[in-house]
Amino acid sequence: MTLKEQILKQVTLAHRAALKLALVPTKEKDKALKAMAAALLKDAALILKANALDVSAGVGAGLTAALIDRLTLNEKRVKAMADGILDIIKLKDPVGDVMDTKRRPNGLVINKVRVPMGVVGIIYESRPNVTSDCAALCLKSGNAVILKGGKEAIHSNKAIYRVLKNALVKSKVPVEALQLIESTDRAAVTELLKMDKFVDLIVPRGGEGLIRFVAENSTIPVVKHYKGVCHVYVGAKADLRMAEEICFNAKVQRPGTCNAMEKMLVDEKVSKRFLPVMCARFRAAGVELRGDDASRRIVSGIKKASAEEWSEEYLDLILTVKIVKGVDAAINHINTYGSRHSDAIVSRDPKASIAFLKGVDAACVYVNASTRFTDGYEFGLGAEVGISTDKLHVRGPMGLEGLTSYKYEVLGSGQVRA
Amino acid sequence: MTLKEQILKQVTLAHRAALKLALVPTKEKDKALKAMAAALLKDAALILKANALDVSAGVGAGLTAALIDRLTLNEKRVKAMADGILDIIKLKDPVGDVMDTKRRPNGLVINKVRVPMGVVGIIYESRPNVTSDCAALCLKSGNAVILKGGKEAIHSNKAIYRVLKNALVKSKVPVEALQLIESTDRAAVTELLKMDKFVDLIVPRGGEGLIRFVAENSTIPVVKHYKGVCHVYVGAKADLRMAEEICFNAKVQRPGTCNAMEKMLVDEKVSKRFLPVMCARFRAAGVELRGDDASRRIVSGIKKASAEEWSEEYLDLILTVKIVKGVDAAINHINTYGSRHSDAIVSRDPKASIAFLKGVDAACVYVNASTRFTDGYEFGLGAEVGISTDKLHVRGPMGLEGLTSYKYEVLGSGQVRA
Repeated sequence: MTLKEQILKQVTLAHRAALKLALVPTKEKDKALKAMAAALLKDAALILKANALDVSAGVGAGLTAALIDRLTLNEKRVKAMADGILDIIKLKDPVGDVMDTKRRPNGLVINKVRVPMGVVGIIYESRPNVTSDCAALCLKSGNAVILKGGKEAIHSNKAIYRVLKNALVKSKVPVEALQLIESTDRAAVTELLKMDKFVDLIVPRGGEGLIRFVAENSTIPVVKHYKGVCHVYVGAKADLRMAEEICFNAKVQRPGTCNAMEKMLVDEKVSKRFLPVMCARFRAAGVELRGDDASRRIVSGIKKASAEEWSEEYLDLILTVKIVKGVDAAINHINTYGSRHSDAIVSRDPKASIAFLKGVDAACVYVNASTRFTDGYEFGLGAEVGISTDKLHVRGPMGLEGLTSYKYEVLGSGQVRA
Repeated sequence: MTLKEQILKQVTLAHRAALKLALVPTKEKDKALKAMAAALLKDAALILKANALDVSAGVGAGLTAALIDRLTLNEKRVKAMADGILDIIKLKDPVGDVMDTKRRPNGLVINKVRVPMGVVGIIYESRPNVTSDCAALCLKSGNAVILKGGKEAIHSNKAIYRVLKNALVKSKVPVEALQLIESTDRAAVTELLKMDKFVDLIVPRGGEGLIRFVAENSTIPVVKHYKGVCHVYVGAKADLRMAEEICFNAKVQRPGTCNAMEKMLVDEKVSKRFLPVMCARFRAAGVELRGDDASRRIVSGIKKASAEEWSEEYLDLILTVKIVKGVDAAINHINTYGSRHSDAIVSRDPKASIAFLKGVDAACVYVNASTRFTDGYEFGLGAEVGISTDKLHVRGPMGLEGLTSYKYEVLGSGQVRA
């Protein structure tokens, strides 16, 4: 069997399973998820053994300490995977919700009903916990799932997959609803991305390179975000103590995340009071500062930012600072260089705040809060499948509802069109 | 300027205009639309003169009578375009709707607010009225629009575009929000489809060939349907008089539309009573019948259907008939060969009807009504941008809401993440 035939077979099985799974009641899906969580705990030793192979191969291949850390499982992390599934059981099943109902003048009743997406492909990199998280989120929302993880984690992913699949055997969820592509060839991804007849949605999770590759090669709709170049604008009428706390949190609390601040815009009206204090605090926390000429005139030792840097995501303790003249300039800068992810204004001026909320073209726009809140849990959506900076289907954090579609169920009594 | 530079320029202007247009109040957008409608009537002669060039070129190039008809404008049709815009004024502006609001335990207030999509690209074929319809729908929903029509209609499209653009000059809608790509080179489409930094959504309108070309070449999200292979299943407990009316309407009333019936499935329990009467009526209306062996044993003269035909869209007075054993077989056939567009069951059996509603994977599933109702107006959504058989963002008829996205507006009082 060629690689293409193998993947087509899996995708076809998933497609058939999805049609059945769409009809499985919540209670039965939850039972299957419970069995999956229990199986992870029961077979933890098996998973850890497989993971050790990946870790030693990774060390041999010279992966960075950060990558090895992402790759590594231990009993605590396996337990966290199981707990993650138990949390997903508690989430409300969106399938079957009647989103809208209409009676037309001709007597037709048109119900807009939430249904599963069908088959969801998840393409991810080195974290093996994505395998169980995404399997559980997809099954809970009635979707079959095609998992394609990174080659560094292949032994771990295969082990987790086998454990989860075995747990489904006695459940009402079709075993074929769970598919792992075992090939580590990138051609496997390219083939998968063309199977739009059977796969309804692709969610890539990983670095910008992976996501661009997926977006450029897929004929299947993709929900994605390339990067998070998040801004905090400290407005002319900001509470500067509040601004300091928000900027510090947005930059330092977890700099490696896509909702961390990468650029700080400071209104010229407060820049001389705000910037020296703020920069001192950042430096004490190990943040490297870069900036425009105006900021460099206020605080010495700020490195000159390059032109390209304004749209760069560092994912690190680096920050670029710019002095701006008023809220419109801030909005304009963000709409030009930002990534449409998450941007905040700190201000006590309602007019400026509203201008910012309406004018900034981003998934999440904040007034007087840290950009770090862009997250499924923090937004009350439950576990997150991903974050979207696209404007279609789902924007911002993507929870269970993001894995659903709808259909129109039209009830008639013999109506024909005139 | 190269073709790419020219298109990039238009797209960049549209992107900037979209950011402004997003803030224009409904009243001002409606005023602009009114001016557009008036301008079409005032400058009808100009438009008809340009259209005559297209029509004579089309006749010269040997276009079919049907294509020439689609291409041709006259005073009545220009008036219909203007009336179409006046109808769009009456539709509710979706922008600004608060779709959801939440207060989180930490005090953050999270509003999910409907916003325009941004820049919408419409790629279409020979009907010049699409130029004004889509321009009006996009502007009403606060979107800039890039129009790319077929080369057969280029003079008409340019004339309509110029008239509409002039009408915007005195309005609050930025003139640059309306862009027509004048190049008739297909490379213009390919270039446009890669400009995902500035264009948020592509809607292709036309034949399957155009739509596949767009889907395969676009890095911008696409809302589409390839074709409509719609089924009516006449169930074992159907009211056969009702079934006859529904099937006749679905096939004959307007066979060239994507929501017309292409395949008729008849339950074996009623096939001998139903099929002879139905087929006689179809033949009297000039419908060519094709079918499986079982149907050919019941009614003589039905041509044997080829294997590929079950997923073929005729858009013509041709119908393929199949005898099926029960509702599950009907569902299975539709899910295997259908196009996820619109499918109907005729039945008095609630169990079978529910099984069909839930089991058929299509945008619109009907009980006891004609598939011909799949349409923005008929569904009460107003004018239609297109129909989607994808499951993301919009499924089925796409109205104004389909041209919108949302953003999260998060209001805080200094919250930072712990």
